[in-house]
Amino acid sequence: MRLTSTALLFLLLLLVFISCNALAFKPQLLGRHTVQTFSYHRPLSYKTFYFDQQIDHFGFLENGTFKQRYLLNDQHWHKEGGPILFYTGNEGDITWFCNNTGFMWDVAEELGAMLVFAEHRYYGESMPFGEESYSNAKYLNYLTSEQALADFAVLIKALKKTLPGAQKSAVVAIGGSYGGMLAAWLRMKYPSAVVGALAASAPIWQFIVPCEEFYRVVTHDFTISGTNCSSNIRSSWAAIDRVSATGEGLQWLSQEFGLCGPLKSQDEVFGFKAWLQETWVNLAMVDYPYEANFLQPLPAWPVKVVCRNLHFDTGVSDKQLLNGISQAVRVYYNYTGDAVCLNTSQTATGDLGIMGWFYQSCTEMVMPMCTDGIVDMFEPQPWNFQAFSDECYNQFGVRPREDWAETVYGGRNISAHSNIIFSNGNLDPWMSGGVTKSLSKSLVAIMIDGGAHHLDLRYNNEFDPESVIKTRELEVNYFKQWIKQAAFDRK
Amino acid sequence: MRLTSTALLFLLLLLVFISCNALAFKPQLLGRHTVQTFSYHRPLSYKTFYFDQQIDHFGFLENGTFKQRYLLNDQHWHKEGGPILFYTGNEGDITWFCNNTGFMWDVAEELGAMLVFAEHRYYGESMPFGEESYSNAKYLNYLTSEQALADFAVLIKALKKTLPGAQKSAVVAIGGSYGGMLAAWLRMKYPSAVVGALAASAPIWQFIVPCEEFYRVVTHDFTISGTNCSSNIRSSWAAIDRVSATGEGLQWLSQEFGLCGPLKSQDEVFGFKAWLQETWVNLAMVDYPYEANFLQPLPAWPVKVVCRNLHFDTGVSDKQLLNGISQAVRVYYNYTGDAVCLNTSQTATGDLGIMGWFYQSCTEMVMPMCTDGIVDMFEPQPWNFQAFSDECYNQFGVRPREDWAETVYGGRNISAHSNIIFSNGNLDPWMSGGVTKSLSKSLVAIMIDGGAHHLDLRYNNEFDPESVIKTRELEVNYFKQWIKQAAFDRK
Repeated sequence: MRLTSTALLFLLLLLVFISCNALAFKPQLLGRHTVQTFSYHRPLSYKTFYFDQQIDHFGFLENGTFKQRYLLNDQHWHKEGGPILFYTGNEGDITWFCNNTGFMWDVAEELGAMLVFAEHRYYGESMPFGEESYSNAKYLNYLTSEQALADFAVLIKALKKTLPGAQKSAVVAIGGSYGGMLAAWLRMKYPSAVVGALAASAPIWQFIVPCEEFYRVVTHDFTISGTNCSSNIRSSWAAIDRVSATGEGLQWLSQEFGLCGPLKSQDEVFGFKAWLQETWVNLAMVDYPYEANFLQPLPAWPVKVVCRNLHFDTGVSDKQLLNGISQAVRVYYNYTGDAVCLNTSQTATGDLGIMGWFYQSCTEMVMPMCTDGIVDMFEPQPWNFQAFSDECYNQFGVRPREDWAETVYGGRNISAHSNIIFSNGNLDPWMSGGVTKSLSKSLVAIMIDGGAHHLDLRYNNEFDPESVIKTRELEVNYFKQWIKQAAFDRK
Repeated sequence: MRLTSTALLFLLLLLVFISCNALAFKPQLLGRHTVQTFSYHRPLSYKTFYFDQQIDHFGFLENGTFKQRYLLNDQHWHKEGGPILFYTGNEGDITWFCNNTGFMWDVAEELGAMLVFAEHRYYGESMPFGEESYSNAKYLNYLTSEQALADFAVLIKALKKTLPGAQKSAVVAIGGSYGGMLAAWLRMKYPSAVVGALAASAPIWQFIVPCEEFYRVVTHDFTISGTNCSSNIRSSWAAIDRVSATGEGLQWLSQEFGLCGPLKSQDEVFGFKAWLQETWVNLAMVDYPYEANFLQPLPAWPVKVVCRNLHFDTGVSDKQLLNGISQAVRVYYNYTGDAVCLNTSQTATGDLGIMGWFYQSCTEMVMPMCTDGIVDMFEPQPWNFQAFSDECYNQFGVRPREDWAETVYGGRNISAHSNIIFSNGNLDPWMSGGVTKSLSKSLVAIMIDGGAHHLDLRYNNEFDPESVIKTRELEVNYFKQWIKQAAFDRK
């Protein structure tokens, strides 16, 4: 079967969409399988609780509740005044965020802080309608950021009311990526609940920045990481098209990349290219200065390692070029050497986390993205809201509202708010939608030189660049300032 | 049929509830019938528009829209920078608020301001499901303050985008009573939409203040307005009980009060007392310093006029006492002398506005009220949340959420916000739930000495006390300051 050009457009949009909006945020989702590896050197101790949360905060007909999971550690907490660091869970299993937010564990003792990690509804175990939560549009209707924020506000109020000694505890919201957006928004919408927020790598303006910005940053990372690196990736798409035009070429490609399932059609080539595109995006996001296992086990500065395979002249033959590309992607998919073959459908699983973010993107989290192959290294793909909307309607029976996020969260006009730190890494593609310049004395932007996606939220590491060490110090100082001010205001 | 004591309790609660929560806010509702009388001396000119508004801002399954009505006057508007004064409509027909917010009309020219009056969903003509809007719990599900605020934010954004010259216009939210709460909350939740808010007589803390406060203020008004005035009202309830214990007494009472329908049972006596209680509340609310027609045509300082009929010694006979009471209520119901008889069911109409506020009180607008007959002049009636909740469930199929308003709107902890004026009249019972002390430099409380319910929002009047004249000046000065600051921030 051959796809019509319209169907192809939809497919492309869907793939681009998954790549940009769902999977690019995916570190938090996929990584859940890596908890063991990641945290083995620091076994974390927390208690798991379940809080009865309203399914619908904004209507009264649906009066049911569900169990919202949250994790709590109070080993360092100074009762009667010690703060609560509250992680605003994003699109995935909260235990994974708990294990991947070493910063909070690192600073708990210094701050005498309780740690709370609250799971986002419709992810992990916090399912409003149990296993049926994703089964239809009616059940999915309560999956919105506004409901999640209300969950957090209600939970915080309940914790402060019921935990002996917590009445006087100032609460600081902390989150990364979408969780960072939620942390910022929690402070913006419920400032009575939290005295301030650390929004790490939080692209709260991704709804309104020019659609090419995201991929421009990805491209820049590859450009600065090795000679000809982004140029060769830019050339690779046409090379793939040319090589895959014949049956022999398809076979060669499949073998060259060691694919688990050989490519059999142009549609599959299309998917193959989307998979490559996503790989480059993910690499840019996790370009950490030390060996790490976030999405995948990776070497230090993985983009540089990737680019070592792509430093040849731009005039090489298609097959030479694609040989380099195949070596490059293996840095990402087979750093350990354990992979038997590469699976191009690996990231398109039916993972609830991905489905959830997909749904959120199809409703309020509309982040326009596009490529032109000139300022970026990808195949040209314009942003087409209508086609995107139709695809969402086909998938979920809902249509995205293009302007809502800007209206409800204020767009660029957020200077009336206070006590929010927006930290960004200059290597992180999501900084394209982040707040990168301070807006006031208490709306502070910090740019982490050499930082990828929320590097500051990770555990201290001996290879941390000076920039992130200073960033964390600054963040803790702001926390102290907010906590002190809150104690003063209470008097 | 005799009511059981439980049923009586419910009825009492319902009546107290209607009296306190629905009808005491009712000026805005009932007054809609008085527009002609009220505005005859200043014919207002505005255009009426209808804006396509989402029925559900917080879910995507219901993707329908409805026509939200708004009124607009731009005769004094300075294009390219003149501000927009935006009335955040409350529980009634917006034309009535338009006609009863003379302050905005009085200051439009000085400020070069456009005036916009936006109707609250489910009131007036802004019905999400047309005539069916109140027909069942499913259709009523979108009647919340959060949805109304979102309506306002979306409408403001659309106006600024589409009205030539409005891009640079700072918007100031203005509202009185529940509309004042909405104005404050609009600034709190959507500070990108409005540079500041005037919340006149807005009891944003009525959810959390001690339940006796409201009736204590009502009582105080009568106490200071004439010798023995509140004492005699306090004595009247038992006198009514004693007199109405016999058939002859019932007949006497009905004649003495000139009731349209004579009292026939103890149940009706119960309703009669609730009607009297509501009358005293309404009088306290509209105790304006000049002849006015807000709820009813009334003389200047109507409570004083009422009290002239109740200045006798507290030891008089039941019938003498009730004769005084009957003269007193006639001040309210028959100042013009046109009333043929007094109708005790007059206020319990099926008015949509009342039904709407009733529903809102049964969901999120839970304002506990109680009386004890000691600090107030009413029959003792404790606050009973469970009975109230059961009554709501019987009536609407929904249950109120006692703590939600405090959580979503921050309770007393609102100091993170800015640019809100809370004006209160010291005669207004609703000041019991108002912000009466400034919380910061930009969260300013103004107490209007000798002011009843949002006196400052009324037209200038030659009998205005100095306090309200100064209040309005101060308010306009704050508006100018906010507008100037916004213009500065835009640069």
